[in-house]
Amino acid sequence: MILILEPNARPESVDFKALTGQLDRLPGIDYRVHREVGAEVTLTEIYLIGDTGALTVEQMQVLPCVEKVVRVSETYRVLGRHKHGDDRPSSFEYNGVKFGQDTLQVFAGLCAVDSPESADAMMHALKEHGQVCTRMGAYKPRTSPYAFQGFGAKCLPYVFELAGKYGIKVIAMEVTHESHVDEIRAALKATGNPTGVMLQIGTRNTQNFELLKLVGKQQEFPVLIKRGFGITLDESLNAAEYLASEGNRKVVLCLRGMKTNMGDPHRNFVDFAHVPVVKRLTRMPVCIDPSHSVGMRSVAPDGVLDLFHVAAQGVVAGANMVLIDFHPEPAKALVDGPQALLLSELAHFLEDIALSRETYLRRTALGIKHRAN
Amino acid sequence: MILILEPNARPESVDFKALTGQLDRLPGIDYRVHREVGAEVTLTEIYLIGDTGALTVEQMQVLPCVEKVVRVSETYRVLGRHKHGDDRPSSFEYNGVKFGQDTLQVFAGLCAVDSPESADAMMHALKEHGQVCTRMGAYKPRTSPYAFQGFGAKCLPYVFELAGKYGIKVIAMEVTHESHVDEIRAALKATGNPTGVMLQIGTRNTQNFELLKLVGKQQEFPVLIKRGFGITLDESLNAAEYLASEGNRKVVLCLRGMKTNMGDPHRNFVDFAHVPVVKRLTRMPVCIDPSHSVGMRSVAPDGVLDLFHVAAQGVVAGANMVLIDFHPEPAKALVDGPQALLLSELAHFLEDIALSRETYLRRTALGIKHRAN
Amino acid sequence: MILILEPNARPESVDFKALTGQLDRLPGIDYRVHREVGAEVTLTEIYLIGDTGALTVEQMQVLPCVEKVVRVSETYRVLGRHKHGDDRPSSFEYNGVKFGQDTLQVFAGLCAVDSPESADAMMHALKEHGQVCTRMGAYKPRTSPYAFQGFGAKCLPYVFELAGKYGIKVIAMEVTHESHVDEIRAALKATGNPTGVMLQIGTRNTQNFELLKLVGKQQEFPVLIKRGFGITLDESLNAAEYLASEGNRKVVLCLRGMKTNMGDPHRNFVDFAHVPVVKRLTRMPVCIDPSHSVGMRSVAPDGVLDLFHVAAQGVVAGANMVLIDFHPEPAKALVDGPQALLLSELAHFLEDIALSRETYLRRTALGIKHRAN
Amino acid sequence: MILILEPNARPESVDFKALTGQLDRLPGIDYRVHREVGAEVTLTEIYLIGDTGALTVEQMQVLPCVEKVVRVSETYRVLGRHKHGDDRPSSFEYNGVKFGQDTLQVFAGLCAVDSPESADAMMHALKEHGQVCTRMGAYKPRTSPYAFQGFGAKCLPYVFELAGKYGIKVIAMEVTHESHVDEIRAALKATGNPTGVMLQIGTRNTQNFELLKLVGKQQEFPVLIKRGFGITLDESLNAAEYLASEGNRKVVLCLRGMKTNMGDPHRNFVDFAHVPVVKRLTRMPVCIDPSHSVGMRSVAPDGVLDLFHVAAQGVVAGANMVLIDFHPEPAKALVDGPQALLLSELAHFLEDIALSRETYLRRTALGIKHRAN
Repeated sequence: MILILEPNARPESVDFKALTGQLDRLPGIDYRVHREVGAEVTLTEIYLIGDTGALTVEQMQVLPCVEKVVRVSETYRVLGRHKHGDDRPSSFEYNGVKFGQDTLQVFAGLCAVDSPESADAMMHALKEHGQVCTRMGAYKPRTSPYAFQGFGAKCLPYVFELAGKYGIKVIAMEVTHESHVDEIRAALKATGNPTGVMLQIGTRNTQNFELLKLVGKQQEFPVLIKRGFGITLDESLNAAEYLASEGNRKVVLCLRGMKTNMGDPHRNFVDFAHVPVVKRLTRMPVCIDPSHSVGMRSVAPDGVLDLFHVAAQGVVAGANMVLIDFHPEPAKALVDGPQALLLSELAHFLEDIALSRETYLRRTALGIKHRAN
Repeated sequence: MILILEPNARPESVDFKALTGQLDRLPGIDYRVHREVGAEVTLTEIYLIGDTGALTVEQMQVLPCVEKVVRVSETYRVLGRHKHGDDRPSSFEYNGVKFGQDTLQVFAGLCAVDSPESADAMMHALKEHGQVCTRMGAYKPRTSPYAFQGFGAKCLPYVFELAGKYGIKVIAMEVTHESHVDEIRAALKATGNPTGVMLQIGTRNTQNFELLKLVGKQQEFPVLIKRGFGITLDESLNAAEYLASEGNRKVVLCLRGMKTNMGDPHRNFVDFAHVPVVKRLTRMPVCIDPSHSVGMRSVAPDGVLDLFHVAAQGVVAGANMVLIDFHPEPAKALVDGPQALLLSELAHFLEDIALSRETYLRRTALGIKHRAN
Repeated sequence: MILILEPNARPESVDFKALTGQLDRLPGIDYRVHREVGAEVTLTEIYLIGDTGALTVEQMQVLPCVEKVVRVSETYRVLGRHKHGDDRPSSFEYNGVKFGQDTLQVFAGLCAVDSPESADAMMHALKEHGQVCTRMGAYKPRTSPYAFQGFGAKCLPYVFELAGKYGIKVIAMEVTHESHVDEIRAALKATGNPTGVMLQIGTRNTQNFELLKLVGKQQEFPVLIKRGFGITLDESLNAAEYLASEGNRKVVLCLRGMKTNMGDPHRNFVDFAHVPVVKRLTRMPVCIDPSHSVGMRSVAPDGVLDLFHVAAQGVVAGANMVLIDFHPEPAKALVDGPQALLLSELAHFLEDIALSRETYLRRTALGIKHRAN
Repeated sequence: MILILEPNARPESVDFKALTGQLDRLPGIDYRVHREVGAEVTLTEIYLIGDTGALTVEQMQVLPCVEKVVRVSETYRVLGRHKHGDDRPSSFEYNGVKFGQDTLQVFAGLCAVDSPESADAMMHALKEHGQVCTRMGAYKPRTSPYAFQGFGAKCLPYVFELAGKYGIKVIAMEVTHESHVDEIRAALKATGNPTGVMLQIGTRNTQNFELLKLVGKQQEFPVLIKRGFGITLDESLNAAEYLASEGNRKVVLCLRGMKTNMGDPHRNFVDFAHVPVVKRLTRMPVCIDPSHSVGMRSVAPDGVLDLFHVAAQGVVAGANMVLIDFHPEPAKALVDGPQALLLSELAHFLEDIALSRETYLRRTALGIKHRAN
């Protein structure tokens, strides 16, 4: 149940306090206040959580400050597609880069930052090919406690400086704890905010709800949330909704292969057939991550890497963002070297993606609208 | 271990009998004789099965009729790609239609034949659009013993006659028992062999080894074998090898989605990322079956059916054959109606496939050959 | 829909032919005649298959010979538990051995018969410990076409003769083709029917419906059907129902571990928690197969083999039959040696099983009947 | 690689600083300092993390303060079983309760605390039956952001006070964020430390490595870590090792069913066959959670709940701890009511568990030690 408050309702007002006082006394009910501060008007919504079945709309509508009461019968309340009232924007712009279900952005970069030299070589190559987005891993979750876990805050200063130098506008960067967001914010500030950051939630944290809530509360950075590799799609979409229910609607969902282990010949079972599914169920842009899906540099008999083939598969069906690992010297990469593309393959990769994107646009332009069964 | 016999070795000769007599006495060893009768020369190979580790090449080479002894250290001996000696043809032609890792054939048709009228309407539409291949299901394996299981032999006469009328050259048709092959052969003969048949082994029979052996022994019809939906890729490729080890090398492997049940939003988990994998591991042409993978007529927000999107995904990565369900009146289909395309969508489907195929060819023509890690 | 005919209705009668003539004309409907010949009365049921939704009970009740019409709304019509009318027997006796949801039988034996010596040693040990059941594998389905596939019909004569010598009453024996049933029947006859055989359907053939129908049609031998390792429980129970719908109700379902491949530390994921589930959904006795579930001789720190632990788990929850691999010399076994127990462990195994069985009986005797939620 | 320092090495000493200064300069190497403060001696170990392959033992041994260098070649360095040097204790006592691979403790309690009344009724029943352990859920991770997520810190005061009143010594309580540990510590202090708490890491946080590190750093509370429901056993054991590598060795691993979704007839696929596996791979006590595995109150035809049957299966194979949900009024439970047992079933449950435990002890006392293959 959602209470939509009167415009500009102020938490410090007597009425507001009366409202929350009454909510505090509801048995078995918790609530979350979500405020969206605009230039002219501030919108406040209160999400009631728990067993709201016993509450009536009438009962809640008479509470102080309440303008409207909405019963949340639909899944993915904020991010989902609903029969009525999808009036909220389905796309966003961040630092000059557009994200939506109609756009395509490529984020080529380093799975794990391992030295200023690699970061420099990577970003230099991106600039040469007109790219303004990249991925740079600083905080790396690893299965074993004894494995390398990224350089963390130490590498942020040079990563951000290099980004500024090469005109990078958005860096996708995984965080595994809320303190990392603070470290990123501080490092950006210290380097004069030369670039933007899209916070990334990894597949092992898809259901780390406390992290989602804390990352969702901030609205400075957009968020890329990876699908959980061992949970259902529905559970992953609910996880994305955690971000949105806290206020951050700049969310992109990333498909990265599932862990079915049915003798998967790739590192994971590529799930890019779900690109149209996610677009149908929600209004989020959909990212694909061929690197972690395929996990190896296998070449098909036609001379093309599986990595290229699956990237093409995602894009030809409408993917909106591609996360792809490169490395100047894969053999020396500290994490996931075997799946990294070479810098010499960047031009070809971008050309290949462009072909598939063009085909996607031609396919949708064929003009026949199907009706579902 | 494979014994390659002298050319034209005859089973009825004294030497040949002496050879098999000696093989009969080997403890723990079974064997299978495979003869390939050519116009000028007949090749005979004997596959030794069981614990051949104790046998030496020298010991076997001196047996009567034996020309050469090959130790089978490699998987998928006949169909696989090997470092040495892939001298056997990797493609074939059947009834004027070519199948290989470089070609593309579309098999649009009925999942289950339910009436002469549907078959006529389907094939009429195919002819109108220049198609010479189709799928027609007569024998349908069903989960419940109380469900409709196809019209079987009853429908074959009109199916084959209509095929002749509309210029269909190859019909993909599932068989679930070896007696069906006889019924098909008889019905073809009775109708004057108006068309060709590609026998189809369904996903529930991928490891029905007795059926595979019997279907593999005949070399009249090529075979389309579906990947098992709950076994590993390696196990499915071994199943295809059963066909080939019995003599039939005209084998196509069909990807049809896996049964991971990780909350799959489609009927099955689409596995078309494995198109390049199967082509790398074997020399078989690779078919995709979007209908059974997706299993529903869901439409993406871009107006395109998921069925079209996943078909495009398979083709853009190099699929060689597409099996796709249509029905004149899906609502009246006795089996799998919900996933059938409408005849009015055939032209669009073919056009969409053509776009993806063209893109595949352009992609591979980009000309950079990658090296694996 | 099931048509229950008048008692002693004869297929050769005019009425019966009139009935089938009318059924032949029903569009989209197939049917299967099932006769149960008793000493005094012969019962005939006709199962209508296909889209029976359009037929009415009234319409069918007036057909010749028809006494009663039952709409099959329930799953597992013959083997399942239903709210009304579970009047058919839920247990059976075969060759003096009882099978039901209340009994326990141990079938220790050879996964694959490899020599008369092993079979003799195995059965000798069984007799010494008072056992009258065993398993003996003659026909072995194998993933690779080049692996040993059992001695088949060749070993049957000595297997049956030894069974007679050692007082074995029932041998569980896998068949992978209907011709094997004929071979078994012939070999039994040739050796003077010294023992009984329970036909076993392996996990790769759980959905080999043609084999199920043919094995189900004969009522001479009871059938042990293994759960499919990559399909749902519902699908496996439907497979068992194929046997019953053809007339053979002496069916035991065997749990043998699932192929989840989630990094299973055993060969398969042990599914013996489903013992009570199968007993709740159907009236079949439930067998467990610890050997194929665990697949290895791993020892826990308490000195007990995992094989013993999981067998105890199945029995303590009410399993009715245990299939367990032994071998006089596991290192020399042609199939699955690593999982075989030693003959010297037989006494301990039987004692361990007896402890768990006693505990199961004490547990159920605690006397509190729970009510489900 | 682990550097074991000289006893009583002090971080503030010059030598120590010299050491860490040198470690800081190692390329691609991170490190973690772990100190175990004893009454007489303080042990310090430094875990080197990352690509340690290039470092030699000789090179590290000469660094200041270093007494010994151990290359970590084995998995689960701290918790695992190793061929050499398992000198660290494999069991522990907390608040008077023993945990080890030889003991058995039952933790019956509330999945989610919903009122002081339920908590009182639950603990009252436990005391009546001589139980000193319980489970009480305050922080509940939920799939949907709009579902009830536990009363959190609000309920801790009365939960702890009631625990004191009824003589509860250990409460298993899930935490989903490190701040919860602080809240628990504070509430315990505020109520005069009337009871002990075993921190619980839920299945969705098994790979929330930041939480594991922070919980592992504290050594006040033992930790119960649940196996991840969609990852491999190896990955879950590595997660437990995260706790131990930070210093907390009082770790219990909990099996709670896997999410295979192969049409599981229970909420999860019960994995209690892995009890002996975890005991073989590690020295941790093994807990089972029948409630979350089964997830429903289904009754077998023998009158026994599946919940009882699977609990018996875990215990008969040597489980060391049982986590089981009860509720005074399941229909009113805010979370997972359908799987909760009734207070009236507690006596029967404990008796049933005792029977299985006794059987386990008799089974292991049979006295034959097996050798693995």
